[in-house]
Amino acid sequence: MSMEFTHVTLGQRVLFGTGGAAAHVAEEIARLGATAPMVIAGDAERELARTATAGTTPALWWDEVIQHVPVELAESARAAAAEYGIDVIVSVGGGSTTGLAKAVALTTGIPVIAVPTTYAGSEATDVWGLTEQRTKTTGVDHKVLPVAVVYDADLSRTLPVGLAVASGLNGMAHCVDSLWAPRADPINQALALEGARALALALRGIVADPDDMAAREQALYGCYLAAVSFASAGSGLHHKICHVLGGTFDLPHAQTHATVLPYVLAFNAPAVPDLAERLATSLRDPDSPRRPGEQDSAAQAVDALNDLYRAVDAPSRLSDYEFTDSSVPEAVERVLKAAPASNPVTVTEDNATALLTAALTGSTPNVESLAPAGR
Amino acid sequence: MSMEFTHVTLGQRVLFGTGGAAAHVAEEIARLGATAPMVIAGDAERELARTATAGTTPALWWDEVIQHVPVELAESARAAAAEYGIDVIVSVGGGSTTGLAKAVALTTGIPVIAVPTTYAGSEATDVWGLTEQRTKTTGVDHKVLPVAVVYDADLSRTLPVGLAVASGLNGMAHCVDSLWAPRADPINQALALEGARALALALRGIVADPDDMAAREQALYGCYLAAVSFASAGSGLHHKICHVLGGTFDLPHAQTHATVLPYVLAFNAPAVPDLAERLATSLRDPDSPRRPGEQDSAAQAVDALNDLYRAVDAPSRLSDYEFTDSSVPEAVERVLKAAPASNPVTVTEDNATALLTAALTGSTPNVESLAPAGR
Repeated sequence: MSMEFTHVTLGQRVLFGTGGAAAHVAEEIARLGATAPMVIAGDAERELARTATAGTTPALWWDEVIQHVPVELAESARAAAAEYGIDVIVSVGGGSTTGLAKAVALTTGIPVIAVPTTYAGSEATDVWGLTEQRTKTTGVDHKVLPVAVVYDADLSRTLPVGLAVASGLNGMAHCVDSLWAPRADPINQALALEGARALALALRGIVADPDDMAAREQALYGCYLAAVSFASAGSGLHHKICHVLGGTFDLPHAQTHATVLPYVLAFNAPAVPDLAERLATSLRDPDSPRRPGEQDSAAQAVDALNDLYRAVDAPSRLSDYEFTDSSVPEAVERVLKAAPASNPVTVTEDNATALLTAALTGSTPNVESLAPAGR
Repeated sequence: MSMEFTHVTLGQRVLFGTGGAAAHVAEEIARLGATAPMVIAGDAERELARTATAGTTPALWWDEVIQHVPVELAESARAAAAEYGIDVIVSVGGGSTTGLAKAVALTTGIPVIAVPTTYAGSEATDVWGLTEQRTKTTGVDHKVLPVAVVYDADLSRTLPVGLAVASGLNGMAHCVDSLWAPRADPINQALALEGARALALALRGIVADPDDMAAREQALYGCYLAAVSFASAGSGLHHKICHVLGGTFDLPHAQTHATVLPYVLAFNAPAVPDLAERLATSLRDPDSPRRPGEQDSAAQAVDALNDLYRAVDAPSRLSDYEFTDSSVPEAVERVLKAAPASNPVTVTEDNATALLTAALTGSTPNVESLAPAGR
């Protein structure tokens, strides 16, 4: 029961407001005393970037953005920043755009104001990534943490419902997996539970009405907390499993994460009853009547996630994605090697096989079927 | 319903572990690459400070600590720090000790590692205070935020139960009042609710068994979050009222805060039903059966706080502290001037009178008696 942890809180300003991007970006540039902003935004985000920088006079507009940030691209952008005497970077876009801004900041120390247009979450972390000769290197450096993040749900208004749901469930996986990840602590757990609450509200709302801006705001906010808590807590069992499924079996990222999550929850929840109870509270539809209080907290958490999944029509079985019975043994073998030692339930060949088989067939995620007999 | 806020997260390392202070302090000094530490600890904390710095070789030991940090004291400490080439300050003590360390950091930029031995919370904020000719000046400066805080419940083990409860309730007031304070936002609200949860657990535990170290840990942790959320959200109605009662009527600080809080909650909760529901969940004794779900969320929150107050035998009426019927009108007049415009319920002469009269007489805090007829 004793509390032991080291928690690193990353200092950052978060400016949140629908329709407020231009004013907030201008405010932050003024606060930094910067006069030569470089705007980084890919072609697809050009209009959003114009909106977000309407109150600003860019010294340089950079529109080449490539996934995984090739090192040559980073070097050109750095050279351009030096040539133009850039003193602040405003990135407008998703993870690749923020990533390029971080790559420039890494070597130059130029502060970044991030304006995310997706739910990627990179804007809330001090993790950078660069790709050289098809090999991606990642690292952690305080210099790449954006000094300010400007969230404006208007800029993600056009994100299609399907993408918003997939991306939101990815955020949900970050929140849930943070609860038992290697560096989980009470602070990042509290932030993860708050993120899960926001995302459950958001996804129900967006599915019910794609133009529900309050729901879009909750999604942005929830994905921000998902990134904060996941960066702080690290990768838990869920992410290790999905890494195996994606890396070795080439399963699609978003669908794999969405499918696997409830099974990992059913697997771990009985070992963390207090967290399960709090997660159940976070996930439950506030407008639905509670079930009678007979279930234990693990079952409540799993049921609450299952309910949410039904509401948003989430993917439900790996057999839809070229994963078969015959793949299970190799996947299990790799999961056993990758599973964090600190996972609340010790992963064994038997229980990992039960978990992956259930995810394969899409049997309703259920504490009983994965525990304790299954262990 | 739209979400609009600017949230400033202060970057800081938090190292938490009972019995771990010496190792954590040494670890942080090494991380900073510092070689000439100045230890600030008053005479009363000398032994605690020796324990906390057992792994460290101080270049200077400073033991003069005075409440409210007189400017002359700050200047002597700064001069000594310069003379000894100090490159890190380790403060071991309560608010006055942390305050002196901050005063040195303010002008010198020397990083501070704070080791709190009370629940004061100053270690988690960038607020400094100095007193010159009986006038206290406060300010906000990033330089005074301790780079690291080392929490070790062993160092607060000897805090008497009465003081731990009073101090914990003060933290609780910070958490609850943060929910509707002028800069309240979803992030500091989530941290405040988590702080309230920890403090409710802590206070019940410490009262039941003063040697319950898990409860002492929860108290430290809860008061840390109380400070984080309050510094972020600002002073709400509760603190404005207590400021009037303390400043004009000279009522005792801890008792006044403890007494007034449930009445402010009963006053505001009906206007913030979602937050009230979450607060009720945070405050409830996890080992007690829930009441049937008939009450609205505001009444649930007030009941949960009343239950906690009974469990810890908290102060319950201002008439115990030389506050009388005849003082109410002047107090109301001053509260009307001080009340935040953003308070969820508009404060009027009538409802403020009802609130203060209820707190005076100690009638059970109750949503019905303060609202809406009372408004």
